[in-house]
Amino acid sequence: MIAVDWGTSSLRAYRIDADGAIRAQRRSEDGVLASRGRFAEVLSSALAEWDDEVVLLSGMVGGRSGWNEVPYLECPAGIDALAAALQPFAPPRFDTRRMLIVPGLRASHASGVADVMRGEETQIAGLLDELGDGTHLVCLPGTHSKWVTVCDGRIADLATAMTGELFALLRKHSILAQSMSGPDDHLDTAAFDAGFERSADRGGLLHHLFGVRTHALFGRHPDAALPSYLSGLLIGHELRGIEALSRNDRPARVELIGNDALLLRYTRALGLLGIASRGHHEQLAAVGMHRLAERAGIARA
Amino acid sequence: MIAVDWGTSSLRAYRIDADGAIRAQRRSEDGVLASRGRFAEVLSSALAEWDDEVVLLSGMVGGRSGWNEVPYLECPAGIDALAAALQPFAPPRFDTRRMLIVPGLRASHASGVADVMRGEETQIAGLLDELGDGTHLVCLPGTHSKWVTVCDGRIADLATAMTGELFALLRKHSILAQSMSGPDDHLDTAAFDAGFERSADRGGLLHHLFGVRTHALFGRHPDAALPSYLSGLLIGHELRGIEALSRNDRPARVELIGNDALLLRYTRALGLLGIASRGHHEQLAAVGMHRLAERAGIARA
Repeated sequence: MIAVDWGTSSLRAYRIDADGAIRAQRRSEDGVLASRGRFAEVLSSALAEWDDEVVLLSGMVGGRSGWNEVPYLECPAGIDALAAALQPFAPPRFDTRRMLIVPGLRASHASGVADVMRGEETQIAGLLDELGDGTHLVCLPGTHSKWVTVCDGRIADLATAMTGELFALLRKHSILAQSMSGPDDHLDTAAFDAGFERSADRGGLLHHLFGVRTHALFGRHPDAALPSYLSGLLIGHELRGIEALSRNDRPARVELIGNDALLLRYTRALGLLGIASRGHHEQLAAVGMHRLAERAGIARA
Repeated sequence: MIAVDWGTSSLRAYRIDADGAIRAQRRSEDGVLASRGRFAEVLSSALAEWDDEVVLLSGMVGGRSGWNEVPYLECPAGIDALAAALQPFAPPRFDTRRMLIVPGLRASHASGVADVMRGEETQIAGLLDELGDGTHLVCLPGTHSKWVTVCDGRIADLATAMTGELFALLRKHSILAQSMSGPDDHLDTAAFDAGFERSADRGGLLHHLFGVRTHALFGRHPDAALPSYLSGLLIGHELRGIEALSRNDRPARVELIGNDALLLRYTRALGLLGIASRGHHEQLAAVGMHRLAERAGIARA
């Protein structure tokens, strides 16, 4: 089968054998935004020469501004519910395939403000077997970080923090941009830790952000270290907002799913709070989609 | 005399008579950023046909990337200290004038993170006589909101929140931009209040921001009301971060200095916290610079 993780800004396609092993993968920058008006063409190219019948699609491709909107599934939901909600999709040019779209998940909260994810549920689906019963906290850091509570094999709740998007906005477009030199991929751990500790102070994020500017004015950190300071500050505010991390019965460990640069930062930040973590790679999406197809009885097993 | 309030993105010049009354004013978009490399030319044009000898300049024109850097004056500082620290400046082409630059102010905090302002001190200088003795809290909302504590006629402390800049970044460049239609200058009070109340919930700003997106997805507020929701959310976080507003001995009233649109929002937000406020116009900058020149003995009085 083929699993396609088609998000806002990129597309990843995996060719998976009957055992669930990834035999090949492709990646392109033709995310949903760049693919509007030519979804079929982009997908054809992503699948070229892969003749497998079953194709699962996940991510913003099933969102309101995607190719074919699929309603959110309500939490709690496990593998069974997700597999049952896979939505068949038969666009022209794909009549030799059996295509299905994975629904996103919605959590309704007492505050009246719902939360959603679309795409990340497949990565968690790839982890559910390994986690087993009990309550687990999973974090998928990124542009929109997702904090997901898993209870007894089902996705019970989720919360989003716009940490990565805010970092990028401030880094590129704000007054702080002119104070920050150097590449973002270098982590200055002293500055990161100082930013993280600052997030525990009174004053709130809107005030703390201005400290990046005064640090630049008065040379408290080298300009090249300020992106790390900002990163630590934002991740600190993110973590301190997660209710599950501040409870007395907080989890002993957080499961982190993300790329190496993010795993490094979040592992460090959780460590500063005395919380252990375990890193997992984003290829879990392929594992999860294979599990969903198996459960739906459409993958050769 | 002439008072020039020369900030990052605009220039305002006031011609002031011996009584301190404003006789004429001019405004241009030639802020400090747009004037680099041609400061003298921009100022000549702003002063054209005004032959007064004394010219006070304030704002980012005295900053590191301005025309002539003037060191920050340390808080606490009152009219006397500011008047004594006016820095003479004699660039070519202005030898018939007596030009001085008002220093910005710096507050050092136990956290090790300093705070600064440059330009706003002249507006507060224009208010000090009216405030008299005792402790007063002054807020200058805007791109970078300044919260200033005045004790017995001196500026004792200050804190900055990047509220307005973050609003503009999110409004223009973020994923939330596509969810928000309508002009920013229309205030939808129900949405503003809902955003403000949301800021009191657990979860933190980075999480609350994503709620703007889910509100758009699920139609909780009309898209045209979402800028007001975002404004209420950000101002709510700003206010809840101000230590002086959360203390038991919080001030009975906040003095607000700003334009009409900002006064409307901040008066409303403070009212939701049960705090009274009084609005003042930004022309206080001219009043303040006249007071400084008088005290320095350089204005005809």
